[in-house]
Amino acid sequence: MLKNSTRYSLRRILLGERLASRELTEEKLPKWKALPIFSSDVLSSIGYGPEQIALVLVLPGMILYNYYPWIIAAVIALMLIVTVSYSQVIKVHPDGGGSYSITKQYLGEYPALLAGASLCADYALTVAVSVSSGTDALVSAWPALVPYQIAINLAVLFGVLMLINLRGIREASTAFVWPTYAFLIAALALIASGLYQIIALGQMPSVPPAPAEGSVSGAALLFLLLRAFANGCSSMTGVEAIANGSDSFREPRARNAKLTITMMAALLSSLLAGLGFLIWYHGILPQPDQTLLSALTAAVWGRGTGYFIFQLLTMIILYLAANTAYNGLPPLLSFLARDGYMPRYLANRGGRLSYDNGIILLSVAAAALIVIFHGNVEHLISLYALGVFLSFTLAQLSLCVHWRRQAGKNSLLHWAVNAFGALVTGGVVLVIIVTKFLHGAWLILVFLPAMIYLFRRIRAHYDLIAKQLMISHEEYTAYMAAEPTVHYVLLPVASPTRAVARAIRYARQLVPPERIIAVHIATDIEYGEKVRRRWEDWNPDIRLQVVESPYREISEPLIRFVRDFQSLHPQSPVTVLIPEFELDSLPYRFLHNQQGVLLRWQLLNQLDVIVTTVPLQLASTETDSLQNE
Amino acid sequence: MLKNSTRYSLRRILLGERLASRELTEEKLPKWKALPIFSSDVLSSIGYGPEQIALVLVLPGMILYNYYPWIIAAVIALMLIVTVSYSQVIKVHPDGGGSYSITKQYLGEYPALLAGASLCADYALTVAVSVSSGTDALVSAWPALVPYQIAINLAVLFGVLMLINLRGIREASTAFVWPTYAFLIAALALIASGLYQIIALGQMPSVPPAPAEGSVSGAALLFLLLRAFANGCSSMTGVEAIANGSDSFREPRARNAKLTITMMAALLSSLLAGLGFLIWYHGILPQPDQTLLSALTAAVWGRGTGYFIFQLLTMIILYLAANTAYNGLPPLLSFLARDGYMPRYLANRGGRLSYDNGIILLSVAAAALIVIFHGNVEHLISLYALGVFLSFTLAQLSLCVHWRRQAGKNSLLHWAVNAFGALVTGGVVLVIIVTKFLHGAWLILVFLPAMIYLFRRIRAHYDLIAKQLMISHEEYTAYMAAEPTVHYVLLPVASPTRAVARAIRYARQLVPPERIIAVHIATDIEYGEKVRRRWEDWNPDIRLQVVESPYREISEPLIRFVRDFQSLHPQSPVTVLIPEFELDSLPYRFLHNQQGVLLRWQLLNQLDVIVTTVPLQLASTETDSLQNE
Repeated sequence: MLKNSTRYSLRRILLGERLASRELTEEKLPKWKALPIFSSDVLSSIGYGPEQIALVLVLPGMILYNYYPWIIAAVIALMLIVTVSYSQVIKVHPDGGGSYSITKQYLGEYPALLAGASLCADYALTVAVSVSSGTDALVSAWPALVPYQIAINLAVLFGVLMLINLRGIREASTAFVWPTYAFLIAALALIASGLYQIIALGQMPSVPPAPAEGSVSGAALLFLLLRAFANGCSSMTGVEAIANGSDSFREPRARNAKLTITMMAALLSSLLAGLGFLIWYHGILPQPDQTLLSALTAAVWGRGTGYFIFQLLTMIILYLAANTAYNGLPPLLSFLARDGYMPRYLANRGGRLSYDNGIILLSVAAAALIVIFHGNVEHLISLYALGVFLSFTLAQLSLCVHWRRQAGKNSLLHWAVNAFGALVTGGVVLVIIVTKFLHGAWLILVFLPAMIYLFRRIRAHYDLIAKQLMISHEEYTAYMAAEPTVHYVLLPVASPTRAVARAIRYARQLVPPERIIAVHIATDIEYGEKVRRRWEDWNPDIRLQVVESPYREISEPLIRFVRDFQSLHPQSPVTVLIPEFELDSLPYRFLHNQQGVLLRWQLLNQLDVIVTTVPLQLASTETDSLQNE
Repeated sequence: MLKNSTRYSLRRILLGERLASRELTEEKLPKWKALPIFSSDVLSSIGYGPEQIALVLVLPGMILYNYYPWIIAAVIALMLIVTVSYSQVIKVHPDGGGSYSITKQYLGEYPALLAGASLCADYALTVAVSVSSGTDALVSAWPALVPYQIAINLAVLFGVLMLINLRGIREASTAFVWPTYAFLIAALALIASGLYQIIALGQMPSVPPAPAEGSVSGAALLFLLLRAFANGCSSMTGVEAIANGSDSFREPRARNAKLTITMMAALLSSLLAGLGFLIWYHGILPQPDQTLLSALTAAVWGRGTGYFIFQLLTMIILYLAANTAYNGLPPLLSFLARDGYMPRYLANRGGRLSYDNGIILLSVAAAALIVIFHGNVEHLISLYALGVFLSFTLAQLSLCVHWRRQAGKNSLLHWAVNAFGALVTGGVVLVIIVTKFLHGAWLILVFLPAMIYLFRRIRAHYDLIAKQLMISHEEYTAYMAAEPTVHYVLLPVASPTRAVARAIRYARQLVPPERIIAVHIATDIEYGEKVRRRWEDWNPDIRLQVVESPYREISEPLIRFVRDFQSLHPQSPVTVLIPEFELDSLPYRFLHNQQGVLLRWQLLNQLDVIVTTVPLQLASTETDSLQNE
């Protein structure tokens, strides 16, 4: 008991008091808290989105920055289309669950599983990309930390994100509100300073742009621009978070969620436009040792206090962005688990009402991605946008089906909005597949069918188990009324101790002595003989079988003995009765081999027998034994 | 079954076929094999012993090499004394076990435990020092391997030594015979070449010795020389191996073992004298990047083929020396375990008749030493000789007691030999403690009492357990004849499945229905209500208790329920009957939480209840279920 309460109090310190199931409804978010929580992902993407566009536009000996503003504009336009279309998703489905639930309802199992798999990939990548980018922002300001990048990533992942989320959503949210707002203000201030310097002070570009697209042919240029656009779409990942999590909003949920998504789109558009303009105007190029945003900030503000504060805020908001996925994936996994496509325990709420298993799974998956890709954001981003846009497209197609079924007044207009949205995002999917295929998109195209296969296998298994476990009232009654079977008890005896005496007495209460068979596995033949003589003296009515074990194994010959016995008595249930002594103190257990534990496990796994452990409680030390008296 | 046989065949490839207990006697060594096995430790010590002396004699700005031959001579003299004295140990105790067994017989428990603890420290350090030195020899020849030193050490330890020893002693020995003889020949050839160059060719010292002891005062000089002598004694570790392992010799054991120890002493003396002379004559100084033996070989033979072959042989013999400890510690641990001072399973012979657990324990301990001391031989050697000489002294003191008790013809002479030996080695113990106290000897002086305390605690625990388990015939008869107690069955029910049906039927065979209490832990109140209604409908004669679990735990409220039930029925044994389904395929088990396994473990650890698992075998996939039909 003491050990247990210590464990609980350590848990309590880290995760807070447990919450009862009835406290669930209180965990809801007001708009001013929901905005930072759900939009940190989208807003933080300015930490890497504009840089991803720039990376494609800079070729050896040639800079295509004159196309930069157009690509930014295209991303903003795309975002507005998706936002309008997604407002309708929220309206129709205020219960959350996002693409997966909606697609399941309107398009059926396979599209729903495709959406689910896409979102799984998306969320895990969100965490990996955001955490890596946050650390990039940090080491841009303090290059001395470069060697510790992966360690910092993992510390943030497990030490901060996982822990905060295991504590549960309400407390997490409070921690998120102020940094996100502070980042927003700082980013807007940066844009304002930049514009002020240009318009009021007439500042010239720090680096004159060097357009030299002469040697890029039309088709190659189009391909490059489409790839830059595809990269830019990484800024939009996270738009779906509000739709997926709209059940976390306070009532009226749909209205609050719609207002929040609109707000978010407006903010991201402003940031993208403003920062994109400044990057283009100053001709700031991607650099290996710092982020593009860091270089821009240094160009506008210099590397002073303002710069360092903004880098820290960028870092924090990127880490918080990773948190968006923690609000998204665990509930999604719980939906999949409830439908039998993922292990059932992903649907269990933990002590703090959060989906603990999903949170831990997400942390482990993101850590694996960070370690495998060495925290290199570029590699991860190429895997990134595809899943998101696939799920966008599926959700909007589902809505189209919904509007077709409905005969409402504006349903044709609604249909048109979603159909157009689906067309655009579907186009983006194609663009990403084509332009990024070799840069990692192929991995996603392998991952998605593999996941769908896995989902289906898991579901088939659960269905089969349910079918086998189900019993009708008639079957039950017949089973209970059946003739009682002749039942045997097998009793392994190492040496005739008090523990064995207790087991024999128990066995005698279960069955008559002629149906008890004691077994001694003799690793030492002389000792086996001694046991046999004493047994015959003490228990003349119970048969003892001495089985020689020349290779000094215990479990193996015993299991063979039980199996042989069962094949001689195929109709009779067999109970193996294991005498065991239990110690009150853990360290002393290491002085005894855990034969009993192992044997129990092997018997249940390898044979069809009932296994009973008859314990005898012993004191480990003299002090304990005095206390017990 | 398939999984099991695969496991066994992997085991068979790595470790060979299992050996039956009756094959034990065949695993005995002829002299020509025993010599290399037991003397590789002693012989290999010329790989570091002479260097350890040199290290002390080289001070900043001053080289005391004129004392070098005297210290070598003192070590040789000491060795001859110990060898003579130890021949008597073998004669009196041909059954092996060495200092521990002998001391136990003549001096009692505490001195025996002191000897045992000393030997434990000695053997673990032997492995660490020899493996590290072997790798030093290797990287002296190929400096490019320096960065991988620790990795090489660990690979040799686990990949070679542990594996070879788990295969069993006879096969190990064959692998050892030739390298040891080759090393011996090479070392004698090196000495012969060196002497030939000096005597026949009149070669001058390569580096003129620079004695400058003027500034070292008498007491400080004495201290230095004693420390150099103490360091040199590290060459003698391993002399005891033959006495400890003399039961591995072919009959007549005592005579064969005595011949072997004499042979060994003669060989080591020759090598020490020869190499010591050459080192002194050429004034070869310790160097950071190669071993002293490597420098000497390069001086005599040049860095040609002969040099590289000798370095490789040195490496191999040092690795083999580590193996000596594998022949020593596991049997010692088995003696300690049989006497109840160490965990019992250290006395079990594995599938190949070797003491597997001791072999693994030794490997892990040596690996820990190597990692903690970064494979730095110097640090380890300062911990080294103390334990060995303590055990020498105790063994010889025991023999003195033996001769005093015996009234034989030569017993006074025998007594004198052993008493003189004990006096000398006891003196060495004092010298080591005084001169090396700050250089690590203090660690051993902390370790030894700690180990003795641990031995005693373990023994006290085993004694107490034995006392509690023991039951006399009268007690047994009375216990069996006692009035049968009223017995209850508690049956946790998650949902009313076929698995539960099987458990209920079993429970009804054990006790009448009014003594069965079903318990449903309700994490969901509505579902709990549903279970209750169905239960009352299907099993009207068995009471179902629904326990609310607001925090969604299962084990905790269940254990509380069982505990409360027991306190209401303090006289009645309680059986908890766990319905469980078993899957035929391991990967599918991960789709189900292991609630049953966990619950079983918690119940047995936290309460005094009998725990029975009633399994229901299920198919994991449709294919399996077809096969089963």
